[in-house]
Parts: sequence; structure tokens; C-alpha cells
Amino acid sequence: MGNRLVVLGGDAAGMSAASLAKRRKGDAIEVVALERGRHTSYSACGVPYWVAGDIEHGDDLVARTPEEHRKRGIDLRMQHEAVSIDVDKRSVTVRDLADASSYDLGFDHLVIATGAVPVRPELPGVDAAGIYGVQTLDDGQAVIDGLQRDRPRRAVVVGAGYIGIEMAEAMVRRGLDVSVVDQATEPMTTLDPDMGRLVHEAMEGMGIDVRTDAAVEGFEVSDGRVSGVVVEGETIPADVVIFGIGVAPNGSLAGEAGLPLGESGGIRVDRGMGVRGQDGVWAGGDCVETFHRVSQQWVHVPLGTHANKHGRVIGENVSGGCATFDGIVGTAVSKVCDLEIARTGLREPEALAAGLCFVTVTVEARTRAAYFPGAAPMTVKMLAERRSGRLLGAQIVGREGSAKRIDTCAVALWHGMTVEEMISLDLGYAPPFSPVWDPVLVAARAAVSKLAEA
Amino acid sequence: MGNRLVVLGGDAAGMSAASLAKRRKGDAIEVVALERGRHTSYSACGVPYWVAGDIEHGDDLVARTPEEHRKRGIDLRMQHEAVSIDVDKRSVTVRDLADASSYDLGFDHLVIATGAVPVRPELPGVDAAGIYGVQTLDDGQAVIDGLQRDRPRRAVVVGAGYIGIEMAEAMVRRGLDVSVVDQATEPMTTLDPDMGRLVHEAMEGMGIDVRTDAAVEGFEVSDGRVSGVVVEGETIPADVVIFGIGVAPNGSLAGEAGLPLGESGGIRVDRGMGVRGQDGVWAGGDCVETFHRVSQQWVHVPLGTHANKHGRVIGENVSGGCATFDGIVGTAVSKVCDLEIARTGLREPEALAAGLCFVTVTVEARTRAAYFPGAAPMTVKMLAERRSGRLLGAQIVGREGSAKRIDTCAVALWHGMTVEEMISLDLGYAPPFSPVWDPVLVAARAAVSKLAEA
Repeated sequence: MGNRLVVLGGDAAGMSAASLAKRRKGDAIEVVALERGRHTSYSACGVPYWVAGDIEHGDDLVARTPEEHRKRGIDLRMQHEAVSIDVDKRSVTVRDLADASSYDLGFDHLVIATGAVPVRPELPGVDAAGIYGVQTLDDGQAVIDGLQRDRPRRAVVVGAGYIGIEMAEAMVRRGLDVSVVDQATEPMTTLDPDMGRLVHEAMEGMGIDVRTDAAVEGFEVSDGRVSGVVVEGETIPADVVIFGIGVAPNGSLAGEAGLPLGESGGIRVDRGMGVRGQDGVWAGGDCVETFHRVSQQWVHVPLGTHANKHGRVIGENVSGGCATFDGIVGTAVSKVCDLEIARTGLREPEALAAGLCFVTVTVEARTRAAYFPGAAPMTVKMLAERRSGRLLGAQIVGREGSAKRIDTCAVALWHGMTVEEMISLDLGYAPPFSPVWDPVLVAARAAVSKLAEA
Repeated sequence: MGNRLVVLGGDAAGMSAASLAKRRKGDAIEVVALERGRHTSYSACGVPYWVAGDIEHGDDLVARTPEEHRKRGIDLRMQHEAVSIDVDKRSVTVRDLADASSYDLGFDHLVIATGAVPVRPELPGVDAAGIYGVQTLDDGQAVIDGLQRDRPRRAVVVGAGYIGIEMAEAMVRRGLDVSVVDQATEPMTTLDPDMGRLVHEAMEGMGIDVRTDAAVEGFEVSDGRVSGVVVEGETIPADVVIFGIGVAPNGSLAGEAGLPLGESGGIRVDRGMGVRGQDGVWAGGDCVETFHRVSQQWVHVPLGTHANKHGRVIGENVSGGCATFDGIVGTAVSKVCDLEIARTGLREPEALAAGLCFVTVTVEARTRAAYFPGAAPMTVKMLAERRSGRLLGAQIVGREGSAKRIDTCAVALWHGMTVEEMISLDLGYAPPFSPVWDPVLVAARAAVSKLAEA
């Protein structure tokens, strides 16, 4: 292998790989990174909090600027985009978006970190002014500028997944009247509907108008601006509309180059984040599929924390190291106002789809000793495999101090623990932090009882 | 086996066992429980927070009253104390403390859950008025009554372990000037001194006078009341003194009966919480030794969370079930004002004593994404075995949201994970809850680097 590493995409996975390779190899490697946008290494997950006003400047979401990357010896080319990859010739064709010129760039190692693209359905009126996505810093700035310029009063958020609920909170905190519309039975389809129901009720308690089982049919537009969202024949008035219905892997460049894609459209990689069947071609971040350790399926889970880990693994391997990405268990946490939401492993439909037989339990517990001030309610649902007693998944909805307790379940899942084994776990106990039986262990005990009845 | 279960001790371990046995077996078992005090099933861990004013009534610390236990069919005898056990005759001699009468009580199953006794050194003046322990509800009431009656201005807390620092906080919040005295180099000897130093500095920042490397030599007494604490020849003025220097297992009754005790004086039990070599004799809670999964030694770790688990295991086994207590990994969390403190596994001296070779790392991180409001500093120290890379221990000192992160390390230790494996863990990430690399993973990465250098 020669010494030029070309990185496509300037965010978490790409720049983590680029930075680590440069740190490990110094002058022995030439690192060229292409980013079509205006920012590098930023936290897209932070955009809703910036819009909400928690964070003052969009710049605060940038972990490392282009200039900082260049100081570390990376040949970073902003507003440059790869338009094709020739794997056999080991070359990419690059377009400079500033002047629309093109050039070819050879590589020895290639890292594809092209991220994901927001889903935006082709509905009547979808291109009207006042309709926004929130995937990039530029998107966030556009929303903030629009709020300041147009002084909207009524917001409709399309999609009640984690981006949707976070943006609903942001709009509430900006003082708008907020409706959230989703096709599903309950918000947060990363939870089972019974747990999503708790989110639904809490959102209504915050004054948010939640419309579920409701498909958006189009947008009413007047003078080029959105004025309403048409849902099941009814129009919800709207001065501003936010799309938060998720993202799809941006694997098209890889697909066109003949590289393998999975069912989701994400790039298929091996344990070392190498593109399957290729030498010196790597992929990571929101454009790849990752292995789910519980379902044993390859899935698309776009999350900054995975992207950073991918980047580290690629950086090590490009530098002659020997790192692996060992899969995920499906952990996610989020919040809407002071309601915390967490999940890991499989939901009921996912467990069914994986061909597993299981029991479920749901317990009500408290985040602290019941007598301690601030002991907050917390609901824990668990799925356990009927045959083996193994934990298959956990979901948590509760107040302050609830969400990160999912990590205990995540590590338990990682090791295939049974719920019986989990009861013995030596978790931190003191009255300000936990009841004497941690809520996770209360749920595990309930699951053991349920399995004994089954 | 016949059908009478006799339980010695009415707190967590004893009453958990009694309650579960009664629930499982109903009328098929006679359960007699003896408690020498005036309360059952209470949270001694809650006493400092009651004294601090976080909790209004001592009754709130009682999970189940004597009357509630009796309603569930337990023959509960308050202010009755076992004074000897005859294992061969399967009988205990009981004293009724109310009238000093005695009687013999036969058993088929015996549960020894006699708890622990506070350490109170024989120093000049130690019995003066105004000097308190804080182990029981009665102790807590005595402190509160004393504070209200005597209006003290200056408190000295003897011992800077978790009870000591919690009581220091309680006294600060009661408006007293507080000194804490400890023989050790730094407070919180459940941490290594470098981490204890952080607690020391934080306590001083709260206005607490912290005296370390300082042995108490005696107490100055005037008119029968404490007026000062003599430390290394100097007198610290004191209107009230609180002892918080830990507890010793109350294994004397068992020892006198010829039952096996460990080096700590705690009762030796088997996997099922049966007393070693005995049939139908069980022990649990603060009077037993437990197996430490990392050091592979039997140790005395008095904690309500272990006691409850012991009680559950005994309750199952007495009822013909088949439960085990699978040991501890040494997890503990506590706080002083808004400083959170956590540990699990082995500290440096413990790892050395266990004959292990290791590296240590300490990292500074934040509880949330750096740009998120309330992102609080958090220091994580890790020990990893040099040969295998296995995690041996972790210590955390930080602000809100720090302490319960120790649970991730506790589950990792449970499974003997290497720090390299830990880097892959799929922990909950969202800006309000964690940086994109959780602080625990930042520490694991640092440990991997340190091992590579070693």
C-alpha cells in the first residue's frame, strides 16, 4: 500500500479516521479529506438544542474546525465532493463546488463516510418556504433565522421520533403552539406502543398537540409560504413546519461504484470496517450498516456515537493496527422537556421478527430511595427470552435520572446475561441515587417471576 | 426439616428472608423474627439525609413496620434478643428486653441477620453528652433532638468515609461550622488518595474544615458535655461530635455458637447464603462476609443493597428454591453536597494486595456534551491488569450525573471485560446525557493506550 488516504465526508466517522491515521503515522501518510459542506466534525445531534436556545452559537457544536484539522496536517478540501469512485483504478473523481471544476484523485486507502440524507417525502407543497429539515448546521441556522425573521406562532413537526420530539420541545420553548404528526400509533417507534403511550401523554401534558395514526397528505401554501399541514383531510394551521422523519444511508456513491450495499441501502462492512471484499476501502458512520448483536442482523442505526467508534477503528486499521467494531445492541437515549426516554436491544416486533419467543414485564419504580426528595417515577419494560431467560431488550420512560440506567441493560445484553443473573448485579446504591433495589433489578426480578409462570 | 423458621434481626436481610419465605410457603411455615430494637426494615443509609433535613420524619425511612410484618403472618417479637444459639439442639435462647425474662426457642431453619456494630474507640471522654453515632433510627433521633435542644454551633465529625462525609454535609446544611477528622491521608479511603484529594478539595470549597493524617486522642468535657476534640495535641472546639468511622460485623453470637467466622469477624457462608458446614442455618446482611469477584477474597462490605439480596436468596432457599448470591464487585456510590463519588472493583492497594500487576489512568471528562448546559466535570480513574488488559477497578468523582455511571464499570467487571472490549460498548448517547464518547469509554481508551506503552 502507498501512502495516500482519501476520506469522503468531513464529519464524525471520516474526520475521526483521518485524525487518528495522521496522529499514528505523521509524515508517513498523506491524508486528503473532502467535505461538500461548510463545516467539519460537528454534532448534528445538538441542532435541536441549539434551536431550543440551550446552546447560544452553532459554532459551539463544532468539535474541530477545518482550520484546526489543517493545522494537524490534513489536506482538507471544503466544498469538494466526490462524484464517483473507481475502485479498480483506485481513484475518485472530485468536483469543486465553488467553481464546478473536476479532477481525479488517486488513493491507496479510501474511507467512505458520506453520512445519511434526510427523508423528505414528495408531497404537494413540500418545497414551500417555512418548511425545514434539521440535519446540518446550515439547516439549524435556517430554522433560527426563519424564527427570528418570520415570528411564526404555530409549528407543526412531522415525525415523532427522537428528532421530532426534540424539535417539538425546541418549538415549545421558543413559545410556539406545537403540533406533532406521526403515522404510527404512538410517538417514539423506537419504543413499543405501550411505552410510547407514556411519551404521548407526557407531551400532551406539556401542551403539545400530538396526532398519531395520522399521515401527512400535503401542505397548504399561500404566497409561496406554508400555511397549513393537511392530515387525513384536515388542515392544521402552520407558520413553520419541521421535518424529523429520519434519515437514509447515503450509499449511492458506493453503490454506483459496485460496492456492496445491504437491504437498508447502507454499505456492508466487515469486522474491521473494511468494505466487504475490498482491500484498502473502508466505510463508517451513517452510510453503513452495523451488526446488531441481539437480532444478529445487519441494520442501519445512524448515531454519532457509532460513527466516532467506526472512525477510530478505521484510523487504527489504516495505520497498520488491528481494531474491530464489535456491533451494537441498539441503545438510544433522548428526552422531551424533562421526560427521559431510553431503549436497548429489541422491541417486541423486532424480537418477533428475529424469531424469538419471549415474555415481557413492565414495572413502575423510582429513581431514588422512595423517601428521598426528587425520587422520580420511572417505568421499565423488559423482554426476556422464554427458553433461555436471556435479556432481549429494555425500555425506560421516566423523569430525571432514568435514561442512563439503560447502560446497565446495554452491558448486560452485550454479554447475553439472563434476567436471573442480572438480579445479582452489584450496582451503585445510596438513597440519593437509587432505591435499594435499582429499578433495572426490579424489572429483572419481575421478568424472572414471569418466566417461572410461563 | 420441620416448619419453624427463626430469624435473628429485623432489618433488611432478616425481614427480606422472613417475608419471602412466608409469601412462598404461607401456612406451611411458621416464621418467628426477633428484633432487639424498636424498628424493622428501615434504611440506616437514610439517617444522614434525615438529619440534614432532606427527609422530614424518621418513619419515612421505615419500609415496613412491625405491625405490617405481623399482618403478613410473621410472629415478630420486638425488643427480643437472642443471647445464644445451640446448633446441635437447634434452639436459641431469647431474652425479652422489656422484662429481662428468658426462654428457649427451637428452630428448623435459623437465619442470622444480626447486622453490624459501629466502631467506637475507647478514648478519654468518649461517653460524654453530645457525642453521637448514626447507625440506627434511634441514633438519628438522638442527634436531631440534640441539635434542637442544645443549638450547637460547632460540629466535629470523626471519620471521613461515606457516613462521615454525609454527616458533614448534614451538619453544614444545619448551619453548623464543621470539621472532619480522619487518620488517613485523604477522605474517602474507599478511593485511592489521588481521587480522595478531589473530595478533600471539594469539601474545603464547601467551607468544611478537613483534617487528614490526624488521629483523635480524646475529647474535652465540661459539665459532662463534650467541648472539644483533641487531635494531635490540638483541641478543636466542638459542641457536637458525630462518629462515622464504620462498622464491624456482629458475628459474636455466631462465633460463640461455634459457627465459622472469617478474618473480618463476619460469618462465612456458602453460595446459597447457608452458614458453611451447617444444614438449615443461614446468614446474611452486615454480619457476613461476601465473595469479591475481582480479588477472589472474602470481605466484609456492609451495604443495604447486598443485605436485601442476601435476604432474597435465603428466602428462596428456605422455601425449597435454589438461589445463589454470586458475589460483589465492590460498587459504592455516595455524595457530599453536589459532589458525587463512586467506586467499583479494586483500588490500587487492594489490587497490589491481590497480587495483580496493573496500569492506572485518570481522565477528565464531562457528564454531557461539552456544549450542553450543565455539562459537569467528572474525573474517572481506571485500573487495568497489565497482562490481560482486564478492568480491575474504577473510581469516579464529579458533579451531577457522574456517580451512577459506575454501574457500567460494575457490569463490565462482573464479566471480566478488558478495557479494549469496553471501548466497543453501546452506551446511551444524546447531548443532554453524555458526550459522544461516554466518560467511562474515554477512560477505557486511555487505559488501552497506557497498556500499549507498558
